[in-house]
Amino acid sequence: MKKKIFSLSLVSFIFSTTAYAAEATPTVESVISAMDMMWIMIAAFLVFFMHAGFAMVETGFTRSKNALNILMKNMMTISIASILYFVVGYGLMFGNSTGGLIGTNGFLLKGHEDQVGFFAFQAMFAATCATIISGAVAERIKLSSYLLLTVLMTGLIYPVVGHWVWGGGWLAQMGFTDFAGSTVVHLTGALGAIVAVSFLGGRIGKYSNGKVNVIPGHNIPLGALGVFILWFGWFGFNAGSTLAADTSLVPHVVTTTLLAASAGVIGSALYSQFKYKRIDASLTLNGALGGLVGITAGCANVSFIGAGIIGLLAGIILVEAVAFIDQKLKLDDPVGAIAVHGICGIWGTVAVGLFAIEGGLFYGGGISLVSVQLIGVVAVILWTVASVSISLFILTRFTSIRVSREEEISGLDFAEHGSSAYESTKSIFNENMGESNGTFGVDLIKRLDGITPNKAKTKTS
Amino acid sequence: MKKKIFSLSLVSFIFSTTAYAAEATPTVESVISAMDMMWIMIAAFLVFFMHAGFAMVETGFTRSKNALNILMKNMMTISIASILYFVVGYGLMFGNSTGGLIGTNGFLLKGHEDQVGFFAFQAMFAATCATIISGAVAERIKLSSYLLLTVLMTGLIYPVVGHWVWGGGWLAQMGFTDFAGSTVVHLTGALGAIVAVSFLGGRIGKYSNGKVNVIPGHNIPLGALGVFILWFGWFGFNAGSTLAADTSLVPHVVTTTLLAASAGVIGSALYSQFKYKRIDASLTLNGALGGLVGITAGCANVSFIGAGIIGLLAGIILVEAVAFIDQKLKLDDPVGAIAVHGICGIWGTVAVGLFAIEGGLFYGGGISLVSVQLIGVVAVILWTVASVSISLFILTRFTSIRVSREEEISGLDFAEHGSSAYESTKSIFNENMGESNGTFGVDLIKRLDGITPNKAKTKTS
Amino acid sequence: MKKKIFSLSLVSFIFSTTAYAAEATPTVESVISAMDMMWIMIAAFLVFFMHAGFAMVETGFTRSKNALNILMKNMMTISIASILYFVVGYGLMFGNSTGGLIGTNGFLLKGHEDQVGFFAFQAMFAATCATIISGAVAERIKLSSYLLLTVLMTGLIYPVVGHWVWGGGWLAQMGFTDFAGSTVVHLTGALGAIVAVSFLGGRIGKYSNGKVNVIPGHNIPLGALGVFILWFGWFGFNAGSTLAADTSLVPHVVTTTLLAASAGVIGSALYSQFKYKRIDASLTLNGALGGLVGITAGCANVSFIGAGIIGLLAGIILVEAVAFIDQKLKLDDPVGAIAVHGICGIWGTVAVGLFAIEGGLFYGGGISLVSVQLIGVVAVILWTVASVSISLFILTRFTSIRVSREEEISGLDFAEHGSSAYESTKSIFNENMGESNGTFGVDLIKRLDGITPNKAKTKTS
Repeated sequence: MKKKIFSLSLVSFIFSTTAYAAEATPTVESVISAMDMMWIMIAAFLVFFMHAGFAMVETGFTRSKNALNILMKNMMTISIASILYFVVGYGLMFGNSTGGLIGTNGFLLKGHEDQVGFFAFQAMFAATCATIISGAVAERIKLSSYLLLTVLMTGLIYPVVGHWVWGGGWLAQMGFTDFAGSTVVHLTGALGAIVAVSFLGGRIGKYSNGKVNVIPGHNIPLGALGVFILWFGWFGFNAGSTLAADTSLVPHVVTTTLLAASAGVIGSALYSQFKYKRIDASLTLNGALGGLVGITAGCANVSFIGAGIIGLLAGIILVEAVAFIDQKLKLDDPVGAIAVHGICGIWGTVAVGLFAIEGGLFYGGGISLVSVQLIGVVAVILWTVASVSISLFILTRFTSIRVSREEEISGLDFAEHGSSAYESTKSIFNENMGESNGTFGVDLIKRLDGITPNKAKTKTS
Repeated sequence: MKKKIFSLSLVSFIFSTTAYAAEATPTVESVISAMDMMWIMIAAFLVFFMHAGFAMVETGFTRSKNALNILMKNMMTISIASILYFVVGYGLMFGNSTGGLIGTNGFLLKGHEDQVGFFAFQAMFAATCATIISGAVAERIKLSSYLLLTVLMTGLIYPVVGHWVWGGGWLAQMGFTDFAGSTVVHLTGALGAIVAVSFLGGRIGKYSNGKVNVIPGHNIPLGALGVFILWFGWFGFNAGSTLAADTSLVPHVVTTTLLAASAGVIGSALYSQFKYKRIDASLTLNGALGGLVGITAGCANVSFIGAGIIGLLAGIILVEAVAFIDQKLKLDDPVGAIAVHGICGIWGTVAVGLFAIEGGLFYGGGISLVSVQLIGVVAVILWTVASVSISLFILTRFTSIRVSREEEISGLDFAEHGSSAYESTKSIFNENMGESNGTFGVDLIKRLDGITPNKAKTKTS
Repeated sequence: MKKKIFSLSLVSFIFSTTAYAAEATPTVESVISAMDMMWIMIAAFLVFFMHAGFAMVETGFTRSKNALNILMKNMMTISIASILYFVVGYGLMFGNSTGGLIGTNGFLLKGHEDQVGFFAFQAMFAATCATIISGAVAERIKLSSYLLLTVLMTGLIYPVVGHWVWGGGWLAQMGFTDFAGSTVVHLTGALGAIVAVSFLGGRIGKYSNGKVNVIPGHNIPLGALGVFILWFGWFGFNAGSTLAADTSLVPHVVTTTLLAASAGVIGSALYSQFKYKRIDASLTLNGALGGLVGITAGCANVSFIGAGIIGLLAGIILVEAVAFIDQKLKLDDPVGAIAVHGICGIWGTVAVGLFAIEGGLFYGGGISLVSVQLIGVVAVILWTVASVSISLFILTRFTSIRVSREEEISGLDFAEHGSSAYESTKSIFNENMGESNGTFGVDLIKRLDGITPNKAKTKTS
């Protein structure tokens, strides 16, 4: 023990210039709050890492010619969201409530200096809600328009929903239950995506002379890595929402999350085998996410068996939802974000009313909780669809939110960032200066990048 | 402090609908169990993330035409394993023992509600054991046959081994020491792989007219990322196996794990330089994994120097083992899983008998511990090889566990999932509807995807 | 509770062979030290994972023909660094000081057995400092020369700097403030890079007949993933440097780190839009790293607003620094490591003197802290530049540290490791034994790999 004291004194000597003083006499209570803080910080790190997952899923499930653009969207979403949520979002969400509708103080964390850790955790959530949109609008939205949408979502729309449910607002007072955000985070993001996609329309070639064409992603292994990263981060998303190192609640949430995600994978795999006579890779990968979104609302409130059923059904619902949105609604969602976060988000929220150990319909709780859950879903739909629609309606009076046909065909990477995500043979020829034989090489890579196939054709015939 | 209380009450208000009540009066003991729970949960997250590592290693070290198939195997293994381990595996492994052979209760965690966190941690281990097989059987096994094998491994074979060693079974009673699973997890998985590979035979073109051909992986950077992810997750695998936030044991395990993995890299790099006159990339990457598997059994029982020696030798052994298995035994293991998890797993288990600070041969402990370690290894080999062999023998009476020659050549991605892991130029041509000029583009990408080189040849000559 | 005791006894029975005994009677103090240990271990895992981030950034931002070589460098750097830091580095850095210049005991952790966790955390830092160099010298340095440099950095140069600042050395005594290592880790690594690049010269084709050519990376999505991983790990890097689960300090550090990184992204994006009329992808990605390096020194000492300003300016400075180093200094740094870790490292260290809540110029602290910060920067520059220069001067008397022109053109993967990072069509043709029609396929892939474009040209014309 003497040695330990020595090393601690050494250590405190090393870092003698911190802005804080250590607490005088530690108590069991102070230890517990330190432990809860640790838990929330670790969870915040994991939720942050989910943005790497979103970036990889969205990049892998779209075409190589738009990869840089999507990566920029994801990187800027977490950045803009963090700062905006610090400046206004947190205050609107957790500030003193005005009629249960919106928070009115705590901007720049003023007066909430004791909730810095809670803020960091919540900031990652705000960014998650916004980044859900980027996948659905991929490959044709103007970067500038997307960023305006991100500002709107993280600065106003999400904080309002968050205040209603987690900030002590009117839905919380009604007993609406969304433990980690099936509705607050995922449905809200998906609703923004639905509206944005409706304004944008589909990608060139997606819906042509009545046909619904498949535009496959360019790097599914990267997308699969993204799904694993999201699942990994989701343990922080759900189990961190306990906001405390609770000896019994945390393991319960971790286990419901694990079982629901696993059941989601199995549900999508089996149902795609049944419906399409093969285990479809992207549907199965999205099945994991569907199961995770589905359990997010009820992860603390349902049993393990309940979690498995919720996840299994989420996986099956997902397969139907993807087909319905893509072929019936003709909403072009390259990564399936609307089905995963929207439809499974609604399912997960309603499922709490059915499977909640306390108050769930299947546990003799009657329909009151289900009704409250439905009211919450409808309210969030009305608010988000209305506010995003009005905003985009106004925006589209002044500018087009979509890139030009030429830019879309040549790829947003060249159009908006002036370069390519992958090695072009151009760089090779640069090596031997001045050789102007680039044609074949450049032309070849253009084909690989999916640019101007016509020229390609003429060149090769 | 007042503020803190305010924020906590705010917080508990926000999440007023949890299925649990907070403990009445916290004590030092309750704080410690909360801390241990946190540690095990964080370790479980890290072990979960290892599945992303396995997926990337196996995808990167094989061919692009089989990438989707391998990703599906990894994603479904963790899913099936989690649910099966919940339903039966955990009970067989940690339920009340029958003659030290197998557990008999605790299915669906009945009566083990206080061990939910421990279950989640152990479920990740069960999935790890099963997923080791997927790399070795890659590129030719039927997905359905692989999934049956996964069910068998996680539902019966692994839990039995686990019961013997960690469930208070006969090997535990003999003093068999395998702290984190060199034998229980890694050797068991590798044995399943050896048997499956023996039933399957090599990939087309691997062993042809006496030659041993190299079939290089298609994306080593992805494989290297997988190795880094595995190493990262391994800190949870080993240090989480302390099952407690032990102030001295955890740092010891983290450091032995770090030093052994590092020494494994150096051992493989130097030995491949010595043997092949170059630092071989895949051998060096596998050297990290060899060192990690090697230290897994003894990470809590050996000194830092001992850990370094164990890792260094694991790295050297790995290089010889890969060559021996590939060229002498002619077992076609695309990713080297048998050498990494099997041979290094045996070495690590035996090394405990040599290097254990308490009871190790080199520390004056005599040969008793070594003998026990050897008995454990032999017992696990007999049980696993026998049970997997019988199962596969029966299965192969009814169906072929291998895809057809045509499917294997065209790739399992098309054969089993009807699509490709990477962008095909087809998607490009879809953009300009109806243009039937696909030939060159499609043909080109076919070459890149490794499909029907013959047609390719005729086309280009 | 009875059950819990049961399960714990079960558990302790399962792991009955640990090298340690549990503490007799736990106290609040022992719980706190266990909690601090946990925090430091988790942070160490995150810092370890940063090496995956460095590997992906450096691989993605360079050409495919050198990918294996860079991966090997990163994998061997963490391995060599961990072992060397255990043997000598830690002792030189944290051993008893001789005149505040260097530590003189604690080698192999002798006498520091109570600081094992602190060692593991610090070992990851030492490796980080060394691996910064690998990106700057990529695509032309001999692997052997690079490894010698790694030994030098982790065995001597970094530990000396670390002793001065964190080991109670003369800079610490002067009050030099570098909380998590903007100077100690990042500037020191960048200085090693500057000297090495000066000795090496630019890559073939980078600076030719007066022109400054762009040699784009081959896989930016992989590089972007690396940036996300680095950001994720950086939370451990900065917040772990508190060395304790401090309820108020840790959330503060996490939040300053989040805001500065976010502001760095926005700063680089907006400034590249202003300067180059487009949001440049690699500059924006590096902007995140610039913001992180910038806040590393002051993350515990500055306000949230201050953190935002530091990050925003770091992002802008980065864009100018990259252009200046690349075009004016003509230092060929493929990944921008010198600008990110060097220039932003200096900025971050000086910024502490300006923005520190206690003693910062802008907080009425006068110029004393700024002066101390500048003295520290200059001292580290002198020591590192001098020691690396002398070492490389001596080394270059005996051997060339650069690969041959032929090796560089054909790629270091073939030259040093005898294989390729990506699937070559050769493997395809292997499948149908003996067909010697490889020409087109091999030739095609050679173009994609960037090998011998001349031959390629003649073949296609």
